[in-house]
Amino acid sequence: MRMYDLIMKKRNGGKLAKEEIEYMVSGFTGGQIPDYQMSAMMMAIYFMGMDKEETLHLTMAMANSGDMLDLSQIDGIKVDKHSTGGVGDKTSLALTPMVAACGIRVAKMSGRGLGHTGGTIDKLESFEGFSTGISERQFIDNVNKIGIAIMGQTADLAPADKKLYGLRDVTATVDNMSLIASSIMSKKLASGADAIVLDVKTGSGAFMKEEEDAFSLAKEMVELGKNAGRKAVAVVSDMDQPLGYAVGNSLEVKEAIDTLKGNGPADFLELCLTLGSYMVELGGLAADEKEARKMLEQTIADGSALKKLAQFIEAQGGDSKAVYDTDLLPKAEFIEEIASPKEGYIEKIVCDEIGICSLLLGGGRETKESDIDLSVGLVLEKKVGDYVKAGEPLAIIHGNNKDKMKAAKERFIGAYSFSDSPVEKQPFIKGIIR
Amino acid sequence: MRMYDLIMKKRNGGKLAKEEIEYMVSGFTGGQIPDYQMSAMMMAIYFMGMDKEETLHLTMAMANSGDMLDLSQIDGIKVDKHSTGGVGDKTSLALTPMVAACGIRVAKMSGRGLGHTGGTIDKLESFEGFSTGISERQFIDNVNKIGIAIMGQTADLAPADKKLYGLRDVTATVDNMSLIASSIMSKKLASGADAIVLDVKTGSGAFMKEEEDAFSLAKEMVELGKNAGRKAVAVVSDMDQPLGYAVGNSLEVKEAIDTLKGNGPADFLELCLTLGSYMVELGGLAADEKEARKMLEQTIADGSALKKLAQFIEAQGGDSKAVYDTDLLPKAEFIEEIASPKEGYIEKIVCDEIGICSLLLGGGRETKESDIDLSVGLVLEKKVGDYVKAGEPLAIIHGNNKDKMKAAKERFIGAYSFSDSPVEKQPFIKGIIR
Repeated sequence: MRMYDLIMKKRNGGKLAKEEIEYMVSGFTGGQIPDYQMSAMMMAIYFMGMDKEETLHLTMAMANSGDMLDLSQIDGIKVDKHSTGGVGDKTSLALTPMVAACGIRVAKMSGRGLGHTGGTIDKLESFEGFSTGISERQFIDNVNKIGIAIMGQTADLAPADKKLYGLRDVTATVDNMSLIASSIMSKKLASGADAIVLDVKTGSGAFMKEEEDAFSLAKEMVELGKNAGRKAVAVVSDMDQPLGYAVGNSLEVKEAIDTLKGNGPADFLELCLTLGSYMVELGGLAADEKEARKMLEQTIADGSALKKLAQFIEAQGGDSKAVYDTDLLPKAEFIEEIASPKEGYIEKIVCDEIGICSLLLGGGRETKESDIDLSVGLVLEKKVGDYVKAGEPLAIIHGNNKDKMKAAKERFIGAYSFSDSPVEKQPFIKGIIR
Repeated sequence: MRMYDLIMKKRNGGKLAKEEIEYMVSGFTGGQIPDYQMSAMMMAIYFMGMDKEETLHLTMAMANSGDMLDLSQIDGIKVDKHSTGGVGDKTSLALTPMVAACGIRVAKMSGRGLGHTGGTIDKLESFEGFSTGISERQFIDNVNKIGIAIMGQTADLAPADKKLYGLRDVTATVDNMSLIASSIMSKKLASGADAIVLDVKTGSGAFMKEEEDAFSLAKEMVELGKNAGRKAVAVVSDMDQPLGYAVGNSLEVKEAIDTLKGNGPADFLELCLTLGSYMVELGGLAADEKEARKMLEQTIADGSALKKLAQFIEAQGGDSKAVYDTDLLPKAEFIEEIASPKEGYIEKIVCDEIGICSLLLGGGRETKESDIDLSVGLVLEKKVGDYVKAGEPLAIIHGNNKDKMKAAKERFIGAYSFSDSPVEKQPFIKGIIR
């Protein structure tokens, strides 16, 4: 078999066979197939596409390219969740204690990642002493005992995807639905969960700007999951403005805790209840989502979700006092208002820009080596459809450097547009794919 | 400027600007732009194409990427010729003495190349002592004095093209008309001639299998030449069977000499007269092709072309005796007939296969390091439309190794197909683009 012939075949609209895709993925991962042939192949796939079978073969070949996490020592059905990412996305922080309190097993392996704010691991480090550097033994024991554990990514999961994504990222071959779906799902499949709930965002703060694309991706991933023998559901939700109000690491932790205490933003709570109800249902603990949703609401009402979060933090060496007293979380030195420059209804918020404001304050990583300031960020006071008077606060900004705050404020105001007439709020949950 | 953005632009159907193409070509040649980005770009160009302006910019950027041959010290209009290559293509050997005898200046820089037989330089080495290792001074003096000189490729002409072609060759991005045309023309433009006559072949022994593609390529190249300020004409001719009868180095030299003596195959003579008449006309030595053709016919009738060949061979250290006595050319040890397996009209000859027979005998290079056996090859006795009886010779095979000859014979017979009813001969010259 020669890579040249496979490129030619795909370029001419042919269909790659299972063995051909396996040859390509293992040769590329092993270094026998050079980057320049793989990038030509990716561009050919961009133009000619892959059908469902090719996409499944690619996904499986990448999932099998490194370690496959063995979660067999964990009792019951393991349910994983994946978000395509957005601004103010603190979902895992509230959702996992909620479902764990219902009895679902959540065994997550996480990386830190780049972005406007840190990843879930960074946010959790707002709790003093918390660490994801636990052994595989402790990881499994914790899941069996309390229902949640998060481990830093030690295993070499789907290295083919990592290498391929790096190449696609510099050759303008990222935005092909089959390639995106296979990249996400190869990692999820290697992570070993029995059921996967996908949190697919759409809008100006999401990877999928168009709703139609978000649905296509959701469908493709759910189908891949099922064809790989797992249970899978996707929830498509709005990311045309930040999720909830808080953007920034410890500010988001506070918002997640507030939500578990029953004081969360409506959109964020709705997302947790929706995703959670499918996790509970796929995990076999409820007959349908309605029943699952009630169970989840109960975990907030009776405080069991909050208690689960505290247990989880403690089990990984963290100080759980901040769960009950969020004043103990990292705090910025300066807290100021961002005043609205005019009066009117908020018509639009360029969501990406709000993320960049958090990054400007020092809340995210620009390169892998950057340090994150956990205390900085923004808390929105006004979102789309809200009415504001000139001078009233649009948001509260938390920072440790006046220059950075000035820059972030300007950028923040530029992201808002106003209307004289009332603006209709869009539905937050766009649809379910199952 | 970032290569990533240029790939994205082309992928999305955009048009690359002159500065963008120059940035891309110089960055790639200099090693700042990696192969994997360039191969993705080539695949994007394969799908989205380049318009006339982009193709011209690419051609000029590649032509300017290394040395540009300065032929200003040669008096008069310098005319170059380029063939897209085929089986039995000994055109330069007869054509250049013919046009030089008319007064045209031919200053050629040649490589050896890979192929079924050697390149023009290899073939010329059939004359004992002949060498292309002459100085640039002698090269220019020779052209001024006798009208022809051929120098081995010492200058670094169009290195961008060399590097890019090497990459396209392994990433299935060769067959795009704009890329093929710019590759050929960048080298021709760097070679410094004022006028270029292009010998574009079509058929089973040519790079362009389809006549339509050959015409597209011819048009694209002529337009590029003109837009670069040169005179240019293309002749599209048949390569659905070998050109003339001889295939193999010294056998082709003999056929070229026979042609200059007035005993050449009709198709080969026609090609030399057609290409030559445009060379003479573009060189300003004749009012039109008709007049030019008469001048060329005269160089054969009065022996001046043959004499010119002898002068040229001697000027570069060769022994010209073989020009007058072709028995002095390298000869194979075994000369045998290939008998026809059946009776009938020759319907078709898979032309590429005849080239491979020459290669099997040792007449071509499989790798750059291979030695060539100048004496071996085949001389066809029957071509398409000819009638043959079973047992009559289809060709005479010249070899130095019986095993190789056996393999070549079998392959040769397999390349022929026969018909019971008469087969119409196709026109040899398919068209002229000017």
